[in-house]
Amino acid sequence: MSSTAVAPPACLRRPLVVPRRFMFGPGPSNVPPRILEAGANPILGHMHPEIFEIMSDIKSGIQYLFQTKNSMTLALTGTGHTAMECAIFNAVEAGESVLTAVNGIWGERAADMAERIGARVNTIVAPPGGCFSLEEIEKALSKHRPVLFFLTHGESSTGVLHPLDGIGDLCHKYNCLFLVDSVASMGGAPLCMDKQGIDILYTGSQKVLNAPPGTAPISFSDRACQKIFNRKTKPVSFFLDLSWLANYWGCDGKPSRSCSLYKLITFQMLGLENSWERHRKVAEYFHDGLENMGLKLFVTEKSARLPTVTTIVAPPGYDWKEITAYIMKTYNLEISGGLGPSVGLVLRVGLMGCNSSKANVDMVLTALKNALKHCHKSRV
Amino acid sequence: MSSTAVAPPACLRRPLVVPRRFMFGPGPSNVPPRILEAGANPILGHMHPEIFEIMSDIKSGIQYLFQTKNSMTLALTGTGHTAMECAIFNAVEAGESVLTAVNGIWGERAADMAERIGARVNTIVAPPGGCFSLEEIEKALSKHRPVLFFLTHGESSTGVLHPLDGIGDLCHKYNCLFLVDSVASMGGAPLCMDKQGIDILYTGSQKVLNAPPGTAPISFSDRACQKIFNRKTKPVSFFLDLSWLANYWGCDGKPSRSCSLYKLITFQMLGLENSWERHRKVAEYFHDGLENMGLKLFVTEKSARLPTVTTIVAPPGYDWKEITAYIMKTYNLEISGGLGPSVGLVLRVGLMGCNSSKANVDMVLTALKNALKHCHKSRV
Repeated sequence: MSSTAVAPPACLRRPLVVPRRFMFGPGPSNVPPRILEAGANPILGHMHPEIFEIMSDIKSGIQYLFQTKNSMTLALTGTGHTAMECAIFNAVEAGESVLTAVNGIWGERAADMAERIGARVNTIVAPPGGCFSLEEIEKALSKHRPVLFFLTHGESSTGVLHPLDGIGDLCHKYNCLFLVDSVASMGGAPLCMDKQGIDILYTGSQKVLNAPPGTAPISFSDRACQKIFNRKTKPVSFFLDLSWLANYWGCDGKPSRSCSLYKLITFQMLGLENSWERHRKVAEYFHDGLENMGLKLFVTEKSARLPTVTTIVAPPGYDWKEITAYIMKTYNLEISGGLGPSVGLVLRVGLMGCNSSKANVDMVLTALKNALKHCHKSRV
Repeated sequence: MSSTAVAPPACLRRPLVVPRRFMFGPGPSNVPPRILEAGANPILGHMHPEIFEIMSDIKSGIQYLFQTKNSMTLALTGTGHTAMECAIFNAVEAGESVLTAVNGIWGERAADMAERIGARVNTIVAPPGGCFSLEEIEKALSKHRPVLFFLTHGESSTGVLHPLDGIGDLCHKYNCLFLVDSVASMGGAPLCMDKQGIDILYTGSQKVLNAPPGTAPISFSDRACQKIFNRKTKPVSFFLDLSWLANYWGCDGKPSRSCSLYKLITFQMLGLENSWERHRKVAEYFHDGLENMGLKLFVTEKSARLPTVTTIVAPPGYDWKEITAYIMKTYNLEISGGLGPSVGLVLRVGLMGCNSSKANVDMVLTALKNALKHCHKSRV
């Protein structure tokens, strides 16, 4: 019998106490009791018939959410970062050209990932809060001839909702796959994968879907599969190799081998158009309320404002950290500062999924008003 | 307002019904209600002070479980495969030499992963059910001069518990890091990371720990960190880059940046030696019962039998699939067939964590007896 040298830590004897909060930052959002309870179901085996049925239902749910008929549609165990790597690892081989659109942190992240696997990476850069025109995108596609073009639909670091129409066609004209990150927008703003010619699309579970973090829905078009299944080299990751994932999820027509037991995603989304419309209306109501208070929105172009995550120009004369701390302390409510290019420039408020309601807007507006009253203001 | 072309699937309107089962396969194991309930706690933000405290507690728990004082100890969002890739991606650069010990499926998997990132991979191979001697290991270390040696402690595909004493010293003599996979053994068999000179150690959440799949504890020695933080190239994965993970988990002495919200691991393990001892006794009781029934154990060397997953020689004259199906149908109880090199050769029974009890052994023995009575037997 061996004996232990490291003693059991006393901290693990304390009962776990997790406070309830209003999660109105850029994510994770609140998870409603119905979904938390679904996660407390017993564990099933990865080869039990019921789990294949649940996975098939999840696949149908993602196809609806993404508005796609792609057979290669599944959910990964992991975060949005996992899905971003899954897309890039599978679609790109070392030495190939990749183009990423950078108007916030996520385009930079995608460029970093592609560089790590030895791709030749070029970027087009827009100022934080800005978008890219079709002309700018075509010019870059024509110049760099990438195999993959990355764009963020909902850029949560700047609060931009990027238009998607026409980009898929441009990409295909240049024999390039169109990869879209919709982590912060999916379910909260219109997006139709097939109609908009998107080849690879992914999102996360912890934003508009109101599920716990750790599951990432992803889908691949036939055009994407065509390239991926004709690679010369294996993807760097076994865990994210689409040929394995496709079989786990019964996407390749062969009998499923097995799968890790994925956390269940219980979609709030039955009524996708209703969800888009609610997020749009609630965001407008919120934006009007902010402007009536004398606050400014970071994204000046109205149609480019992300309805799920709002970026507010940091109120002049205030320390933004004091404002978020005051609101957390007084209201038990999370809003956050900037990220990447918007650090120090903005406050960010996320109202996603079940959190997207006028009542919650009123609560945030009241909290902001009182914060501006009570926090220290220097002469500007 | 865009309109949707893919209709909401009717299957998602059905209530989710998940059956309760005895999960006595090689994993996942049953999750007790206390742990399922912990997972139903509200979501916290990745920058809230409470989450850093919970992460710090989880770190202390893993240090105890692994018997290590390593500061670089954390939990990944992902499966055992994720942890295997995290270890290899960080510890190995393209062109470096890696040695893996193959006596089942997991050594092959590690070799595959190392090849994908461009390592020069060599293997030593033992017959399924066998182990490696210190002499064999030293000979291979001396010949291939690897930077990393991979060994599986609990080889769940064959039911072997591999001895670890002395291997760490050998590796260090040849300036090589010692990487151990303990997914199927951790908590169920003695293992002391620091004392046994293990440089990188990982496990999964869904075996002896009785937590849901999707969290993978991992720890790195100072020697491992020394190599990892002096790499010439970035690891292929951003998501698994230890320099980021270390900061998320406050392992690098700098202020934590942020972290994904990891699923809580509520350790059953307070009393690690008790757990080792219980698994050992229950396994012996089980093995005696099997032999009394006239069944044979696949691992002939008693001390090399994994106490968490037992491999039974497939009863001659029977179709093993009929046996596992009969037991599932009659007892709502999962046991499984072989994996990799043991397919068709064995039945596998996992009794892990809260499932490791004499009462459960009695239930499995009864189920097996009745299966052998009712299933079709051909003349041998």
